[in-house]
Amino acid sequence: MTTSAKGLEGIVATQSSISSIIDDQLSYVGYRIDDLAENSSFEEVVYLLWNKKLPNTTELEKIKKELAEHMEIPDAIIDHLRSYDLSTVHPMAALRTAISLLGLYDNKADVLESEVNKQKAVSIQAKIATIVAAFSRIRNGQDPVKPKKDLGYAENFLYMLNGKEAEEIEIEAINKALVLHADHELNASTFTARVCVATLSDIYSGITAAIGALKGPLHGGANENVMKMLSEIGEEENAIPYIEKKFENKEKIMGMGHRVYQNGDPRAKHLKKMSEELTKLTGQEKWYNMSVKIEDYIKKHKGLPANVDFYSASVYHSLGIDHDLFTPIFAVSRTSGWLAHILEQYENNRLIRPRAEYTGPELQDYVELAKRG
Amino acid sequence: MTTSAKGLEGIVATQSSISSIIDDQLSYVGYRIDDLAENSSFEEVVYLLWNKKLPNTTELEKIKKELAEHMEIPDAIIDHLRSYDLSTVHPMAALRTAISLLGLYDNKADVLESEVNKQKAVSIQAKIATIVAAFSRIRNGQDPVKPKKDLGYAENFLYMLNGKEAEEIEIEAINKALVLHADHELNASTFTARVCVATLSDIYSGITAAIGALKGPLHGGANENVMKMLSEIGEEENAIPYIEKKFENKEKIMGMGHRVYQNGDPRAKHLKKMSEELTKLTGQEKWYNMSVKIEDYIKKHKGLPANVDFYSASVYHSLGIDHDLFTPIFAVSRTSGWLAHILEQYENNRLIRPRAEYTGPELQDYVELAKRG
Repeated sequence: MTTSAKGLEGIVATQSSISSIIDDQLSYVGYRIDDLAENSSFEEVVYLLWNKKLPNTTELEKIKKELAEHMEIPDAIIDHLRSYDLSTVHPMAALRTAISLLGLYDNKADVLESEVNKQKAVSIQAKIATIVAAFSRIRNGQDPVKPKKDLGYAENFLYMLNGKEAEEIEIEAINKALVLHADHELNASTFTARVCVATLSDIYSGITAAIGALKGPLHGGANENVMKMLSEIGEEENAIPYIEKKFENKEKIMGMGHRVYQNGDPRAKHLKKMSEELTKLTGQEKWYNMSVKIEDYIKKHKGLPANVDFYSASVYHSLGIDHDLFTPIFAVSRTSGWLAHILEQYENNRLIRPRAEYTGPELQDYVELAKRG
Repeated sequence: MTTSAKGLEGIVATQSSISSIIDDQLSYVGYRIDDLAENSSFEEVVYLLWNKKLPNTTELEKIKKELAEHMEIPDAIIDHLRSYDLSTVHPMAALRTAISLLGLYDNKADVLESEVNKQKAVSIQAKIATIVAAFSRIRNGQDPVKPKKDLGYAENFLYMLNGKEAEEIEIEAINKALVLHADHELNASTFTARVCVATLSDIYSGITAAIGALKGPLHGGANENVMKMLSEIGEEENAIPYIEKKFENKEKIMGMGHRVYQNGDPRAKHLKKMSEELTKLTGQEKWYNMSVKIEDYIKKHKGLPANVDFYSASVYHSLGIDHDLFTPIFAVSRTSGWLAHILEQYENNRLIRPRAEYTGPELQDYVELAKRG
């Protein structure tokens, strides 16, 4: 047996042709994240991750249409979201349950044929945006808004969330965030999904498991915690003293550094730019300015650059999105990557079953109940 | 980076002091599975896995009482099980959803303090038996039966399932099956749970993810498929011709061999004995007899001995349990191991984040939409 570093750091667990992180460069199927962030719609990226090629005009129209047509969710899911007190639950726990429930209304949930699985992928990718939007509206005492079949994915999501058509810059910001979060090689939630479905379990089990993993503060929860920190800081001039105090108490600053990038997360700069633009529009430049101050200070003193979570916080906040919806939106995007990895796992499957090094007591004789201390 | 064998075979992913598989010997915290199967109640094993010691009389009474007292499930879970058509869904998908939903009714779901997590472990371990029993009864058009506070775990489960008190031998059989399935080192569902909660996600996310993994036919689904095979064979004299035909078609025989055991699964013999006893009592010795014939034949021709799934099929069948409940009962037992591993993961956590070897296209230039082929 081969002993690995803790957390399987540096262990290659599988081959994959979906995304790569080589020399701090992130690419989806060989296309640089910078190009995709600047040029692509989320639907293009979804198509790319699932088909390993960029769509032509016809293919792009087709997947856009399919996604829009599958966005409507069963009434049972809406009824379910109305059946318990949404104000007290973690939105990711609600999303985990709703996706698991969605599987119960799919009579092909357990059909693992490739074509059927691809149909389910479209349906899940379409419906997860609607579920997050419906959750938010019901929680706020509003009726859910049905998707429009003529809107793109990012636009439709904002429409269902806010009940009105979005501004161009809002659509651009959400689209960019969706593109940047879509896939990230074997991150913890994607790996969870692959380990889960490598038993030949179904797609819904894989996505449900992945949502549970993304819920963790060491993974998807980071951007919400960045915003929590910015809110605590409140004003620009408090930023550095706040961080100095965190350093003194040896507390971790969220949104900084990343295990797989040595010289910075290539996704951060796109959201940084978006944050600058959006905070100017809202007149709340302080969120951007204090973020830059913190980033520069931590880079100088700890050598840690900002990661994708850091500026996504002020971007989402500027769009008026509730802070605890940041991670569900991350999930909406990452579902595209989870689905790509699940389909890839099925194509060339083997059960993922490592070993543990046993560190407990040696073999010992059984002691009958009456004689135990 | 270190490349591993496919499926992480032979890679040590973590240290653990819960169970060990050394030289084909399975032990829980150093106690041989043979001793535990012959002598222990399931509650003793639960205590052992969670506390790393066998309970004395007081400690055993305490955990028995706690489990019995927490077995009752919220009405909302019953209402939920009545809200959709149970006859068409995979029972493991229903269980996955119900456990995820259970988390929404626990206002301490996201409190990760050790003591609170231990309380949640008791509650989940208690309630999962009730959920499986309620699912079965509602599906059969019967009302769920509430647990009795004075019954042991195995007895209570049978009582809630059948609506009447069980015979001694039935209790013994279920107790033994629960003890034998409780933990098995880093099996795929346990590993799924650990990867999930290593993001510091909550226990419900971990158990939900694990149920999804156990659902897969390469993992928990095997005993149900063994019974399916036995039913197809129908009579003893058909057993060998059936297997020969499977060999000819190069089809896999379920319940045989195991990745981590070279010379046989130490759990199999206990259920083999139980199967012999129970089939005698029901007058349906054919299930036992044909199982033995198949085991001997495959051992002789393929060198593969029976694993734990093989005889659990005829044991559960003899108890009158629906075949598609075999895996949910496996889940009821393995929840004790999942919970032990989740608590252990929290104690000394690091994000589990391996790498993938990228095998897709090299870096390529972006092509604008109109120019794509």
